[in-house]
Amino acid sequence: MKTLQFWLEYGSTYSYLSVARIGSLASARDIEIEWCPFYLLPIFTKLGMNYGPFLPYPNKMEYMWRDIERRAQRLSLPYRKPSAYPIDSLPTARIACIASTEGWCQAFTEEVFRLHWTEGKLIGTDENLDTVLVALGHDPAAMRARAQMPETKDALRRQTERAEALKIFGSPSFVVGDELFWGDDRLEEAIDWASGH
Amino acid sequence: MKTLQFWLEYGSTYSYLSVARIGSLASARDIEIEWCPFYLLPIFTKLGMNYGPFLPYPNKMEYMWRDIERRAQRLSLPYRKPSAYPIDSLPTARIACIASTEGWCQAFTEEVFRLHWTEGKLIGTDENLDTVLVALGHDPAAMRARAQMPETKDALRRQTERAEALKIFGSPSFVVGDELFWGDDRLEEAIDWASGH
Repeated sequence: MKTLQFWLEYGSTYSYLSVARIGSLASARDIEIEWCPFYLLPIFTKLGMNYGPFLPYPNKMEYMWRDIERRAQRLSLPYRKPSAYPIDSLPTARIACIASTEGWCQAFTEEVFRLHWTEGKLIGTDENLDTVLVALGHDPAAMRARAQMPETKDALRRQTERAEALKIFGSPSFVVGDELFWGDDRLEEAIDWASGH
Repeated sequence: MKTLQFWLEYGSTYSYLSVARIGSLASARDIEIEWCPFYLLPIFTKLGMNYGPFLPYPNKMEYMWRDIERRAQRLSLPYRKPSAYPIDSLPTARIACIASTEGWCQAFTEEVFRLHWTEGKLIGTDENLDTVLVALGHDPAAMRARAQMPETKDALRRQTERAEALKIFGSPSFVVGDELFWGDDRLEEAIDWASGH
């Protein structure tokens, strides 16, 4: 089975469009997704990108919201503009790290993004996190405690270092062998690449 | 006939992919393209974007070259990495302004980009410009003199002001009615929009 790494920052907007469809796209092509949560902010800071490609530029921000809405419609994905941006993705990313080693990262991520992007339960809030954890059969308090443990923090840091080593500078990113693809608009191309283009 | 405005900076890399295929895409769908040359650098400067989304960031630059090469292959477009970046697009943009009022902007632009992206004759050089002007039946010396006249410089300045008023912040950009689409990866979407999605 071919493998595609899906590198994901939970505070990234366009990543919603990828999270919402990568599961079905990959399974239709018999591609295994390796879910790779990481934390993008330190990479932005090191690269001198401040707060990423959108936040510092009002025209780009305004465009981004309209573009995502239009893309969601084109892709037949549900969409409701979230009430806050940016958000603090760190707690979610840490739990995603745990989830990725235990095999429930896809279910966790899909639901975390769905709540944020269709139900107004924002990523980074306890409401979002607890709703998802309960739905997946985890004890939210126990999981939040694990998220604060040094080994979990280290695991996320290592993920971010792996992302850096792969020269990743944005989310979503897809890695297939030596090929890096950046942006939701490259998802289909990455899938094609993974299945031997 | 439906109309799509194609806003174009001649120093933009990804714009090559759009220039190379927008003609056939639009005519297949019976869409008229309004060729809108402008000069992006002053807009970048005003927005505080320095030299645009790639140049200040080595990882993004490296990614950009590989991505364009891969996209050209996917779209069956010829590609040879140009020997210089960035280039001085100003003389070309001024002549494009003349061309756009006289109906030969498409032929001019397609050839200017083709020479840069497949034959190593760089945009901004006399070699590139003169080759194209001669091929289109113009006197290169006379045309370069017109490019330096105040009314030509003003015409390009007005184009850039129009782009700003449309909240354009990058190239290529496509405008259909009130909708702005940014990036070569939105070309198909813009075409669909122009033909009533």
